[in-house]
Amino acid sequence: MSLIDDLNWRYATKKMNGEKVPQEKVDAIVAAAHLAPTSSGLQPFKVIVISNPELKEKIKAVAFGQSQISDSSHLLVFAAWDNYTEERIRAVYAYANSERGLPESANADFVNHMVTHFTAKTADESYQHAAKQAYIGFGLSIAQAAELKVDATPMEGFDPAAMDELLGLKELGLRSTTILPLGYRDTENDWLVNLKKVRTPFGEFAIERN
Amino acid sequence: MSLIDDLNWRYATKKMNGEKVPQEKVDAIVAAAHLAPTSSGLQPFKVIVISNPELKEKIKAVAFGQSQISDSSHLLVFAAWDNYTEERIRAVYAYANSERGLPESANADFVNHMVTHFTAKTADESYQHAAKQAYIGFGLSIAQAAELKVDATPMEGFDPAAMDELLGLKELGLRSTTILPLGYRDTENDWLVNLKKVRTPFGEFAIERN
Repeated sequence: MSLIDDLNWRYATKKMNGEKVPQEKVDAIVAAAHLAPTSSGLQPFKVIVISNPELKEKIKAVAFGQSQISDSSHLLVFAAWDNYTEERIRAVYAYANSERGLPESANADFVNHMVTHFTAKTADESYQHAAKQAYIGFGLSIAQAAELKVDATPMEGFDPAAMDELLGLKELGLRSTTILPLGYRDTENDWLVNLKKVRTPFGEFAIERN
Repeated sequence: MSLIDDLNWRYATKKMNGEKVPQEKVDAIVAAAHLAPTSSGLQPFKVIVISNPELKEKIKAVAFGQSQISDSSHLLVFAAWDNYTEERIRAVYAYANSERGLPESANADFVNHMVTHFTAKTADESYQHAAKQAYIGFGLSIAQAAELKVDATPMEGFDPAAMDELLGLKELGLRSTTILPLGYRDTENDWLVNLKKVRTPFGEFAIERN
């Protein structure tokens, strides 16, 4: 199966059957997001992994009662940095240098430039920018789930402030961005499963300019 | 090769060798973005496909002179809707209904709700939200390129207003968001190709909450 086949197989599952997703598959789905490219390599987001039924119920209550959340096996919450700070930026590059066997001074000018560039943004601009990077990872996790024949429902419909509170994200300097319930489609009871997948005509989506 | 292998193979190519990417691979890379899930299925973005050398030079001039742009085979520009308008929203659902053989009245309440929900945002909030959806597609195109062993460099570093002007995007109701040069790595001259890929430790990226 190619990625295109996987993307055609997947759909935004509306009803899941409660079956458990093996841990190694959950790990691979998170690992795809972990490998996502991000602006200047800062990786300004994390993934919260939730399987506890009571916590899922609490989350469902701040997400319009959507049943995939409680019927899922695992719920992933994508959470982006609430701000770009000098400390966070320097820590990323210091770690990269140590992993590459380079001294901290190896790219000091670049790092200083990144600190100046990113800390010039307001906290909200920073969050918006970090959230976009999280969406790259979100897309890759969705693709990885499909490759493993795990269903997933990309969702933005929840109260982010309530979610942050439930998960203690503020203390981690994070803000919830999107959620992704993982599980298996309930083919008998999902109204969407048999509807044709529709995308805008390809010729209107891809525009040549020469 | 699995998606994880593909993501480990890829890197943000700094120097491309000018070799041409076959059209069918370019099409598949755009098709992955076309299949991206988006908020409420609105697909509020498009991909501009550019291969003309003169146009790539003009774009390079508004993108800090980054050489991948002119050394690429094709340049993809991801451009998001500049606003959610009633007309655009209704057009998406009318098309989906027609493709599914449903009457326009099939989901009138849902469509009216979507119009109310999305048009309540300011134009800038709308663009920011649409841009996030474009980042999902951007991630999938990056993954698809890697699957096909085509190199790609995810880039945000350009002057969006100048890019919009060069490509006539305002007239299409679009704003440029990210760019993705496609080509093949110049392994002899790319300073990044042999450096270890570094990601934040997995245990710090994936956080369990139970």
